[in-house]
Amino acid sequence: MPSPFILLTPGPTPIPPSVLAKLAEPILHHRTVEFGDIFIQVLENLQYVFRTKNPILLQTTSGTGGMESAVANLLSPGDKTVVAAAGAFGNRWTKILKSYGLNPILLEEDWGRAIDPEKFKQILKTEGNNLKAVFLTHTETSTGVVHPIQLLSRLTHEHSDALVVVDSISGLGGQELETDAWDLDVVVSASQKGLMNAPGLAFVSLSEKAQKAMEASKNPRFYWDWRAMKKSIAQKETPYTPSVSLVVAQSEALRLIKQEGIQNIWKKTSNLAGWTREELKKLGFPNFPQTPCDVLSAGFVPEGADGTELVRRLLKEFRVSIADGQDKLKGRIIRVAHMGYIRQEDIQKGLTALSSCLHAART
Amino acid sequence: MPSPFILLTPGPTPIPPSVLAKLAEPILHHRTVEFGDIFIQVLENLQYVFRTKNPILLQTTSGTGGMESAVANLLSPGDKTVVAAAGAFGNRWTKILKSYGLNPILLEEDWGRAIDPEKFKQILKTEGNNLKAVFLTHTETSTGVVHPIQLLSRLTHEHSDALVVVDSISGLGGQELETDAWDLDVVVSASQKGLMNAPGLAFVSLSEKAQKAMEASKNPRFYWDWRAMKKSIAQKETPYTPSVSLVVAQSEALRLIKQEGIQNIWKKTSNLAGWTREELKKLGFPNFPQTPCDVLSAGFVPEGADGTELVRRLLKEFRVSIADGQDKLKGRIIRVAHMGYIRQEDIQKGLTALSSCLHAART
Repeated sequence: MPSPFILLTPGPTPIPPSVLAKLAEPILHHRTVEFGDIFIQVLENLQYVFRTKNPILLQTTSGTGGMESAVANLLSPGDKTVVAAAGAFGNRWTKILKSYGLNPILLEEDWGRAIDPEKFKQILKTEGNNLKAVFLTHTETSTGVVHPIQLLSRLTHEHSDALVVVDSISGLGGQELETDAWDLDVVVSASQKGLMNAPGLAFVSLSEKAQKAMEASKNPRFYWDWRAMKKSIAQKETPYTPSVSLVVAQSEALRLIKQEGIQNIWKKTSNLAGWTREELKKLGFPNFPQTPCDVLSAGFVPEGADGTELVRRLLKEFRVSIADGQDKLKGRIIRVAHMGYIRQEDIQKGLTALSSCLHAART
Repeated sequence: MPSPFILLTPGPTPIPPSVLAKLAEPILHHRTVEFGDIFIQVLENLQYVFRTKNPILLQTTSGTGGMESAVANLLSPGDKTVVAAAGAFGNRWTKILKSYGLNPILLEEDWGRAIDPEKFKQILKTEGNNLKAVFLTHTETSTGVVHPIQLLSRLTHEHSDALVVVDSISGLGGQELETDAWDLDVVVSASQKGLMNAPGLAFVSLSEKAQKAMEASKNPRFYWDWRAMKKSIAQKETPYTPSVSLVVAQSEALRLIKQEGIQNIWKKTSNLAGWTREELKKLGFPNFPQTPCDVLSAGFVPEGADGTELVRRLLKEFRVSIADGQDKLKGRIIRVAHMGYIRQEDIQKGLTALSSCLHAART
């Protein structure tokens, strides 16, 4: 058996041994008291991580499916929306909205920069009337930026009646997020990043206003239908067979998170981010994002080196998995995650290997 | 620790130990050669089980999501379709089509009966022109019926240009199915039944005609978009982060299936079905469906007993999980599965416990 990979990619992230062990337990039927109790406990502990009293819905899908479910449930044909995007995942909101025949107003920033609150406010002042929703990204995984969600949410509510919808797929459970205190109507997340589980589950929180929008929406939906999911919770069930093993594993991962305390995890992650950025800089990879997030670090690839080739060699020769830049940043930046169960010692090993690869590439 | 449940429900079904062990392996990143090779092997081995040379797409979702993806990808607003239904899962096609604003022509049979080929032919003769697709169910899990898919497919192709779309979520890998020989355009299945894995993955096979329909469809879709899935296969990838652990576990389950041989499994399952029906009859549960399938048996609950209460007691007192009737059959029938990794000794134990419960309920 080869040694296991050191996984420093921004999702999927390594899974704690006790969570892996849960994945291997004999499967439960999903319409039993035993599973129902675990399911409800998962939803309650997610409320703790989301920092909300709002109901949370669990869906068997990738994070992108969770994002699509927001578009399917909150909007109707012709609705006016804004997408504030500065990277591949911000752009995903736009792609989903367009696939539903909607034409969002786009506020785009250069990749590596955060959304400018002044520009955002101008759009709200001009377009605020009849605006149905704004779509935001908490931590932009393609650039390593954290966007000023709290401020963008406040501006939205001051200048419009729009719903604030946030993709926190890579942020939740690592980067500070306060769903209720920041007045976020919908937060979308997924199991495989800060939540320390295997990929395959998405979660959404719904404010009262979002629930009203869900009832009024005229978009077609069946599998994504939040109304059916919300109704089933009263029976401690999901409308369709959920990914039972992943739900059971999620309950263990959430137990670990609660035990450590979410504020402690935020602080630990922030410290790890600061340390990683410094180490990367020392190795010759200066920090890329203007306002770096805590859950992953992105550094410029040194002059003369090819990031794509570095990432490939690192994986092949050292079994260390980091991420290349996406789309227009391919080969130009590298990305190292420090979310979830990724530990400082793993990053240390990864960076040592990265240094060797860079050295080898230059000689 | 209490003893594990004996799972005799028609999905999720028990998982072989070597497949459970795969679920607990450290997670792989989904954009690596290692994962890509496993992913492609899973698709190839699924072709073996589906009995097809058509491409197969893998989706991170429940079986119902796989069904919705067929509606989203094959049709456009206003398309004329037929649903032939005689149970809860046949009706699911109708619900999904209606949620997309479509109004299928319904051929409904009494629950427990199979679709009548003569009535089906009449509809095709009257409505065959401009018919875009017919939606069928292979084994109807709510009643234990197997529908004459081969014949219904032949009639469809003789009298129309419609696509034949088959839900074989509970049938595949247990009940004989020949995708290519029976000229089935789309077959939908899922991981947690005959395929002996945890729930959370859906699979669809696409004929050339189905691929043309996918290109022409005007329904909104993003996560369900088969075009993106098909394109990614060339890079040994999925468009979004898949349920990595379930894919790795699926590769092991498919290895076991291939080792045993699909025809051998069909035969074994058929024998087990015959034996189970006989045993149920001896216990006072006469066979319910007119044309029983091989993957589960449904028996009438004896006069004076309450099926719902029997199922509840069996679970609570004996940790044996069988299924109650659904919807209009609730309390009136019980359902015992013999698909996937369910073994005769498990069924024997379950039936002995069922007999005790029935006896206790009567004294």
